[in-house]
Amino acid sequence: MSRQAGYPDCMQEMIEAFAKMPGVGIRTAERLAFYVLGTSNEQAKRLSEAIQKIKSTIRYCKQCFNLSERELCPICVDPARSESVLCVVEEPKDIITIEKAGVYKGKYHVLLGNLSPLDGIGPEDIRAAELFSRVRSGKISEVFIATTSDTEGEATAIYLRTQLKQMSVQVSRLASGVPLGSDLEFADKATLAQAIEHRRVL
Amino acid sequence: MSRQAGYPDCMQEMIEAFAKMPGVGIRTAERLAFYVLGTSNEQAKRLSEAIQKIKSTIRYCKQCFNLSERELCPICVDPARSESVLCVVEEPKDIITIEKAGVYKGKYHVLLGNLSPLDGIGPEDIRAAELFSRVRSGKISEVFIATTSDTEGEATAIYLRTQLKQMSVQVSRLASGVPLGSDLEFADKATLAQAIEHRRVL
Repeated sequence: MSRQAGYPDCMQEMIEAFAKMPGVGIRTAERLAFYVLGTSNEQAKRLSEAIQKIKSTIRYCKQCFNLSERELCPICVDPARSESVLCVVEEPKDIITIEKAGVYKGKYHVLLGNLSPLDGIGPEDIRAAELFSRVRSGKISEVFIATTSDTEGEATAIYLRTQLKQMSVQVSRLASGVPLGSDLEFADKATLAQAIEHRRVL
Repeated sequence: MSRQAGYPDCMQEMIEAFAKMPGVGIRTAERLAFYVLGTSNEQAKRLSEAIQKIKSTIRYCKQCFNLSERELCPICVDPARSESVLCVVEEPKDIITIEKAGVYKGKYHVLLGNLSPLDGIGPEDIRAAELFSRVRSGKISEVFIATTSDTEGEATAIYLRTQLKQMSVQVSRLASGVPLGSDLEFADKATLAQAIEHRRVL
């Protein structure tokens, strides 16, 4: 990116900092910088402090690797949630997504990644060993794998299933199929094939 | 926006702060917050400090209302630039855009807005009086109006022309027409009509 002539130095710094963010191009970065410039001192201070605070207070939950402000996350310490089912997801934000559906009442385990041999990411780079040791601890009767159904997510699910099968625990997988309310003609071939293959008996 | 369940409080604050920015929806805000969380402490600190610094050091140039770190902006104090032409723009970022074209060597005047009677924005809400007093000071022979050619920009241009005509100064307007290299069939009707009406004698 060539330096744009004309902005004061600190404005330029701000634009470059914003432009480093994912999905933010130089024009969006300019718009964001002008927004910050036009916002109240108090609001700018709040944003600035939130950035510092997020770095100093947020860590991964020691047990499940969800985001947390304490050693254990609110889900891990919630006595109302079943200890016998573990839902395995790729990233902390997947927990938020599943929580929104409002039907899952077990606990979670975040892998913080997916297997991706082409990128050199193996089992030791994701939180798989920690998952196995939780399962071996004995309380868990079902591991429910909710990784994405893309190549990496599927590879991860297959790897986990293979390992977990040796631990006398039930392994389940998030169902793939045609989204509710979606017309069949909009489903891609692969999704439709899965939906047909895994059709439910009524 | 309903509160999303599950994020730690300061993460949620950060997401909400980002979501207030123009063009940033809740999903983008989440992505940005995860970016900040994943970035190095040093980078987060730099972004946080840039936000504070921008608010404390950037102000409007006393003369032309461009962004500046000093009382007068670099363009106003540049002795190499002609004092006799003033280019009138809506926003400081328009100066950057015109500077990139690299052909304008005069000075600027930023209105910090446009006339918009429907929104209750009249001449006293933009920096028009300051423009007139610069013109009355005598050194200026031409005022070149480069506001956008939308309804508000045109209304502003017409208002300024009417006022400036009484001050024995030449008033010019940015040319509208078909963009260079663009096929005629892609020009909208209004642009093409302008281009025909204002055709140049060769």
